[in-house]
Amino acid sequence: MTERCELLITNVHAATMDPSLPGAYGAVEDAAVAVTGGRIVWLGPRTELPDTTPDEVVDGEGQWLTPGLVDCHTHLVYGGHRASEYARRLGGESYEEVARAGGGILSTVRATRAASAEQLYRAAEPRLRALMAEGVTTVEIKSGYGLDLDTELKQLRTARRLAQHHPVSITTTCLAAHALPPEYDGRVDEYIDLVCEEILPAVSKEQLADAVDMFCESIAFSVDQCRRVIDCAHKLDLPIKVHAEQLSSSGATAMAAAAGALSADHIEYITEMDVAAMAESGTVAVLLPGAFYTLRETRVPPVDRLRAAGVPMALSTDLNPGSCPIASLRLMMNMGCNLFGFTPAEALAGVTRAAARALGLCCSRGVLRAGLRADMVLWPMDTPDQLAYEVGALKPARIFLAGRTVGGRDVTAG
Amino acid sequence: MTERCELLITNVHAATMDPSLPGAYGAVEDAAVAVTGGRIVWLGPRTELPDTTPDEVVDGEGQWLTPGLVDCHTHLVYGGHRASEYARRLGGESYEEVARAGGGILSTVRATRAASAEQLYRAAEPRLRALMAEGVTTVEIKSGYGLDLDTELKQLRTARRLAQHHPVSITTTCLAAHALPPEYDGRVDEYIDLVCEEILPAVSKEQLADAVDMFCESIAFSVDQCRRVIDCAHKLDLPIKVHAEQLSSSGATAMAAAAGALSADHIEYITEMDVAAMAESGTVAVLLPGAFYTLRETRVPPVDRLRAAGVPMALSTDLNPGSCPIASLRLMMNMGCNLFGFTPAEALAGVTRAAARALGLCCSRGVLRAGLRADMVLWPMDTPDQLAYEVGALKPARIFLAGRTVGGRDVTAG
Ligand SMILES: [Zn+2]
Ligand SMILES: [Zn+2]
Repeated sequence: MTERCELLITNVHAATMDPSLPGAYGAVEDAAVAVTGGRIVWLGPRTELPDTTPDEVVDGEGQWLTPGLVDCHTHLVYGGHRASEYARRLGGESYEEVARAGGGILSTVRATRAASAEQLYRAAEPRLRALMAEGVTTVEIKSGYGLDLDTELKQLRTARRLAQHHPVSITTTCLAAHALPPEYDGRVDEYIDLVCEEILPAVSKEQLADAVDMFCESIAFSVDQCRRVIDCAHKLDLPIKVHAEQLSSSGATAMAAAAGALSADHIEYITEMDVAAMAESGTVAVLLPGAFYTLRETRVPPVDRLRAAGVPMALSTDLNPGSCPIASLRLMMNMGCNLFGFTPAEALAGVTRAAARALGLCCSRGVLRAGLRADMVLWPMDTPDQLAYEVGALKPARIFLAGRTVGGRDVTAG
Repeated sequence: MTERCELLITNVHAATMDPSLPGAYGAVEDAAVAVTGGRIVWLGPRTELPDTTPDEVVDGEGQWLTPGLVDCHTHLVYGGHRASEYARRLGGESYEEVARAGGGILSTVRATRAASAEQLYRAAEPRLRALMAEGVTTVEIKSGYGLDLDTELKQLRTARRLAQHHPVSITTTCLAAHALPPEYDGRVDEYIDLVCEEILPAVSKEQLADAVDMFCESIAFSVDQCRRVIDCAHKLDLPIKVHAEQLSSSGATAMAAAAGALSADHIEYITEMDVAAMAESGTVAVLLPGAFYTLRETRVPPVDRLRAAGVPMALSTDLNPGSCPIASLRLMMNMGCNLFGFTPAEALAGVTRAAARALGLCCSRGVLRAGLRADMVLWPMDTPDQLAYEVGALKPARIFLAGRTVGGRDVTAG
């Protein structure tokens, strides 16, 4: 390392999540972390720190430092909300009655189309801020409530604008193949034409998406239709992600793995062969316990098999107005443990290392290691197990984005 | 009303939770609320507001005003935490292995006994603040991790000290009959002697408790032993509450109702006759979905029967280091709906009107009505259904405690 560094954190324990270090957390107790140019330049036991002249020193006060959290699957830009639909369902109305009354995903499509760009931005901001306040430094945001060219662009531009005005890293995903818009009723293949011939090329031209996602399910698009979307994404040189096998076994995950998808998401209904295919292709399993919880599902994704096969398991909010209006990645860590049987260390890996990989960012973040971006959170806790165990009271002492302090208790966020 | 008032809130919709008004929320749209001397002095449609000269006017900006939230069942003053026990259990160790390794409630008793009053205070503060940030204006705090005279007093004094230094109302409950301390192993009745002859009289003398609670369950104290505690509480003129029938049907709720208990809490295993007894005695059902969720229980309390019988149903966090380390009453509203089948309006009643009644405070708060204390929260939402529907992003715009602004977005908390 160079002798000078911009930031030095000492008197700290590091849960590096580096799989090359021993222990489930890759923990380095009594560590020192040196940062320059937004990157970690040295991390190790304090006693081994080379001579260095830091511009700024942060006393970690014996607290724990983790990678910044990564929420790798959200739909947080949308118009309206579905609280009244939620109340009607709890009041005893069936899904069909609610849909006939104008509820369901298409109500969000209508509200998102009707909202101005400014309204979408203002509605999304508190959701993003809630995640940031928990130590989330990277957030993925999907489109998919437009289902027409203009509104898909409006959603993705809103996500880009959120990134410009908030100290957080945002990646965007075009999910035009989320549902069939009402004006294409009975003409599913024609809608796929629109996605492949107009929406994705326009999105690509404006560089509005970092990836392409699709909802492969009997109530949405078939494997064959999704293959067309994948081919189009590949031509545009965009990586893919797939909403796969949330409600039934469909072959979506095998398709995703064969296509080299970054991630297959939900996957409650995957088979043992799907697990092997994911392990082979390096596709991340993105598990979404908040949607499982909100929809009162009973089929748990096969965590034991994924673990045994070495498939990286990410956890994410799926933040959306229908199946998970919950803006808390920390709660997802807790639900990952309580509902899906994650260990607390797996839960932290699921919102750092594995989540970064699900976004194709495993070479830049999600782990504390020299060379990677200095997205880090300092937590007032005795053990990283507390991150999954506690909900609500344990809040970041300090949040660093590329080495810069951007939030945390006693710190005014930038 | 008098012509002058200290505070006038206009341009606001009020979810009064007043059962004498129509609708599940007792809603008054386009309302005005006048406050003087810490109490609501007038509430009604703005167009009917009498001539008044307010010292201060708050523009509600078309948002919704609810009663301040009441968390009526917490154990938030405790030493240590049980994150490592949580991790061991998720790693596959049985409850017995964990207990043999020093886990379980007695590990919290050891840590609470070992903690200084200052340490207990500092550990409790972030838990209390997390609740306050959500709009909680009244919190009940139980002892029960001391199980000896000095530590029970230390816990209750800590709760009183928290109240002195935070703009929130705290009620305290002595739960000395929470578990058998190890030094009384095999001598349960002698421990009940200690509770009745030493602990409760000392607590009463120092006016440290507003109520007496007990854990009536096969793994804790029998109905007969609890009856002795109730008799003692009655002699000391303290109202009672009972942790009842969480794990099995024991007769605890019938005992509680017969004794005129303010509340029976948990009650997953109550019978139809118990429900009738509660309705008859006016005992509140305090339901704790966070403990149900954390313990992965499957037996849901009989919400339909309680509703049909007219038993008031409160929701609370049960905030504690073992079965619910979750400092979020808003999440409990969501879980009350998703896990127990509450409607959003019942969930709001459960953390306002019914929760106040579970603390014997139904004549002073939990409802917005002239004469009651002006504990109120202003929320940036279109409909009160959003309070149970959304988790994380929807935060109070302004929190009033006895008419004084003490927190909320854009407001520096006092
Ligand atoms: Zn999704
Ligand atoms: Zn309790």
